[in-house]
Amino acid sequence: MIEMPGLIKSAVSSLTHLPGIGEKTAMRMVMNMTGWKNSELDLFAQSVSNLKNLCRCENCGMFSDENVCQICSNEFRKQEKTLCIVENISDLIAIEKSGQFKGTYHVLGGVLNPLLGVGPDELNLEELREKIIHQEIKDIILAINPSVEGDATCSYFKLYLPHEINIERIGFGVPIGGNLEYLDSLTIGKALENRKRF
Amino acid sequence: MIEMPGLIKSAVSSLTHLPGIGEKTAMRMVMNMTGWKNSELDLFAQSVSNLKNLCRCENCGMFSDENVCQICSNEFRKQEKTLCIVENISDLIAIEKSGQFKGTYHVLGGVLNPLLGVGPDELNLEELREKIIHQEIKDIILAINPSVEGDATCSYFKLYLPHEINIERIGFGVPIGGNLEYLDSLTIGKALENRKRF
Repeated sequence: MIEMPGLIKSAVSSLTHLPGIGEKTAMRMVMNMTGWKNSELDLFAQSVSNLKNLCRCENCGMFSDENVCQICSNEFRKQEKTLCIVENISDLIAIEKSGQFKGTYHVLGGVLNPLLGVGPDELNLEELREKIIHQEIKDIILAINPSVEGDATCSYFKLYLPHEINIERIGFGVPIGGNLEYLDSLTIGKALENRKRF
Repeated sequence: MIEMPGLIKSAVSSLTHLPGIGEKTAMRMVMNMTGWKNSELDLFAQSVSNLKNLCRCENCGMFSDENVCQICSNEFRKQEKTLCIVENISDLIAIEKSGQFKGTYHVLGGVLNPLLGVGPDELNLEELREKIIHQEIKDIILAINPSVEGDATCSYFKLYLPHEINIERIGFGVPIGGNLEYLDSLTIGKALENRKRF
């Protein structure tokens, strides 16, 4: 077999770190990149390297150019006194895209997972508790994905957060555009459990 | 809609330059990258930026760490006096992987394409002609992909290269593992035309 130069091999190995990129796709990408101008390669490398300087909102944990993000600095949203707790920034963006939530967020950065060594301390839950009291939050929406760890995290919140706060979890059921025929039994079970008077 | 920080947007826009990567996949990749360590981001950026320093074999055009690549410096392969002309390096690698070709290569870097302004000068055909005479090549295999431009390029070679050289083009037909039911009529036409006594 023909041996590829070290530069190619190291670029391929770097690209395989991206999610969903295997060795073959990475090689195809590198082959394409070998046709790029030097300035294009530099721009690409620079924009990746710049991700080191990404700042996060000190209040909610969302990416932000300022110390406090647009959402947290929005007076109308603060007045809602509703906090939506999400696992990660991608989930926050998904909720924000729906346009249905008008309060503020808190990014956990994960869920409780004893197997991976993620306990209440790793998620800074003490800080979250103080924030909730300080911001006089009245409603909390747990937008935590349904999984064993997600469920456990929600149960923990129920016990741990001040009892006068109204804590709700997002609804589970058949997704819009979904088809009962192709859904798993757990989802259908949840959909039956969560039925509403019509 | 929530505005993403400039650093994220520029990383997403860089990643969409990769083949087969749209905005959504790029965003997913950038989200994943925001979880990387600084050293990982630097390593990634460095390996992409290093592609600028990629050298090519001065004889065939293949990537190479040395001035002349492993294939061109292999005495046994030189003695074959057979030159395989390919469009690009990916095609060279594909042929090399088959393990069926024992001669040397020449990478054209494209095919004649008047619409894109690629003429005989852009492909350095004069240099190729000199190389063929100098290396006393006896057989040429045109491993050019079947397309209007590829066909035109092959016809041009036939007219342009010294007439005493045996010029052949790779065979077209049903690929191994292929199914007549799903093949296009042009391929089936070629397969019928190229039938062999069994």
